Amino acid sequence: MIILGSTGSIGVNTLEVAKKFDLNVEVLVAGKNIELLNKQIKEFNPKKVVISSKEDLELVDHKNVSCGEDAILEAIENSSSDTVVNALVGFLGLKPTLKAIKCGKKLALANKESLVVAGRFIDQTNLRAIDSEHFGLWYLLQDKVVDSMVITASGGSFRDYPLEDLKNVSIKEALNHPNWKMGNKITIDSATMTNKIFEIIEAAWLFNTRKLDAIIEPKSLIHALINFKDGSTTAHIANTSMQLPISYALMNKIDKNILEPVDLLEISKLEFKKIESSRYPIWDIKNEILNNLDLGVVLNAANEVAVSKFLNREIGFLDISKISLNAINKFNSIKINNLDDIFAIDKEVRSYCAS
Amino acid sequence: MIILGSTGSIGVNTLEVAKKFDLNVEVLVAGKNIELLNKQIKEFNPKKVVISSKEDLELVDHKNVSCGEDAILEAIENSSSDTVVNALVGFLGLKPTLKAIKCGKKLALANKESLVVAGRFIDQTNLRAIDSEHFGLWYLLQDKVVDSMVITASGGSFRDYPLEDLKNVSIKEALNHPNWKMGNKITIDSATMTNKIFEIIEAAWLFNTRKLDAIIEPKSLIHALINFKDGSTTAHIANTSMQLPISYALMNKIDKNILEPVDLLEISKLEFKKIESSRYPIWDIKNEILNNLDLGVVLNAANEVAVSKFLNREIGFLDISKISLNAINKFNSIKINNLDDIFAIDKEVRSYCAS
Repeated sequence: MIILGSTGSIGVNTLEVAKKFDLNVEVLVAGKNIELLNKQIKEFNPKKVVISSKEDLELVDHKNVSCGEDAILEAIENSSSDTVVNALVGFLGLKPTLKAIKCGKKLALANKESLVVAGRFIDQTNLRAIDSEHFGLWYLLQDKVVDSMVITASGGSFRDYPLEDLKNVSIKEALNHPNWKMGNKITIDSATMTNKIFEIIEAAWLFNTRKLDAIIEPKSLIHALINFKDGSTTAHIANTSMQLPISYALMNKIDKNILEPVDLLEISKLEFKKIESSRYPIWDIKNEILNNLDLGVVLNAANEVAVSKFLNREIGFLDISKISLNAINKFNSIKINNLDDIFAIDKEVRSYCAS
Repeated sequence: MIILGSTGSIGVNTLEVAKKFDLNVEVLVAGKNIELLNKQIKEFNPKKVVISSKEDLELVDHKNVSCGEDAILEAIENSSSDTVVNALVGFLGLKPTLKAIKCGKKLALANKESLVVAGRFIDQTNLRAIDSEHFGLWYLLQDKVVDSMVITASGGSFRDYPLEDLKNVSIKEALNHPNWKMGNKITIDSATMTNKIFEIIEAAWLFNTRKLDAIIEPKSLIHALINFKDGSTTAHIANTSMQLPISYALMNKIDKNILEPVDLLEISKLEFKKIESSRYPIWDIKNEILNNLDLGVVLNAANEVAVSKFLNREIGFLDISKISLNAINKFNSIKINNLDDIFAIDKEVRSYCAS
């Protein structure tokens, strides 16, 4: 490739990427930082070098070095590389942009001024912008290689409740979810964090991955995040209404408004918290469950019995997780081979937990 | 469609969606809330109704009503609808899930327990999960209809500086960007917010839209957000390194790690702030520029002259935006017809601003 502006911040990072992916560097174009340029020449061994000032020519450690704007344009025209990285600063970058496009090169454009001053005349067929924001926008619309997935939890009814009082909470308090209005069962499951374990199992089946985690986002505005192999993360943000997932479950493309978008300026801040086992004891078995998804049937049966007992005032809030953890401990070596096994184990766990 | 659990929260929202998109409701299945069920029957006129308890049968305002688990399975089997929304609670939802799949129906699955207990036996070919987190994960990987785009700004070197002292800031202070290490020019452009106007113009050309805005996210971890027509927003999150955009500008798919992913638990919170014209006077012309992108050449030329004067200690920090705003005011009726016009106007604006 040809790098215009090799000693600036973008240029230096481009050379780091070139090293990482073993990409060829044919031409280096730099300004006044001859010391750094000479280091780059030594490391990347370009065929051609162009600098800005005539007086620096003799300081450059290269046989084929020239200077000035025209020399840049010539270097682009005469190169065999298919890619030009334009990281020049200011209006000066426009002519090299136009030249690169004219020569049919792929243009990696960090010189935003080219688009700022002459956007309408710039053919984008072979252009990729190097600007973190525009990259972000572009990225959100692409296919990418997934690394891991994260779902969020609201933290449920007792997110901020004193730990030592959890054992005495009332049914009414347990049913008072901070963000979502839902049925009784899921509201209790949310307060114990069992719902999030269920969702981890659900995601494992839906997305065929075990690299799954959850964090608390108290406002329930970010619902899910995906970590990609490259180090990027994307987030899905929407107001708390199930009409969006329902609409997409019923139809493929949606081109009309279902919800008001989230106003981040009005929200003003988003917080992230770890799911602590001290508050949510069920979280201790997350990894055990991920390593053996068959335990889902055990956890579900035990939890259904326990929640029902809690709602009937037979046990306290903390007993719900105790019953589930106890059942997982008791039935952790179950083997499931067919659907009949599921119905049988469900029955067995229920009868164990009922007594 | 067939709705299992029509009087619960998911069921009620599903009927709202059915109304919005004029979808047919063939079967309603509900539990104990006969009062709401009767309202739903009146409004959606289903062919068939199933409830849970025999003793409620005579309270239901419908000719074709039955009760019990087997009646649900029969209703699925005998229906002509191609979609089953399963919003039943608990293990009870599993058999209807299996029946819907066996009958070749499309399954909109809110009964997460089906996957929790029997994920490995559930054919997902025709299944869409109704759960906000899983929807979020799925959504992040889909093609969607874009509404508008938002890029973020760090707020630059003087984001939290007393407004009244801005006129006397030093060059050194102006070059001290809180998040990014960049060249001098872009660091000053970031402090005046002119860089964000440039990026709005850049995005307008790159993504062929005028529905563009920017907000301040002080940590520069969220780089861009897209608002979709449906009301969802997605965000691109990555640590502050240009190696990611550069890598994608040079290669198509990246399947190795470029950056460490952002640790949201360590970050703990993200804030969002409005870009205020009192601190960033250039922001006043954002809409004028978006309505006439040809002004990019004027703003760029004026700003290049002004920044250069500031770095040469000829003017104060606030004079940079003044010079730009003055130039936009003076040249706001320019017409650009070809590339030569751009070079001519650039020259004219520079000479005007120099004097």
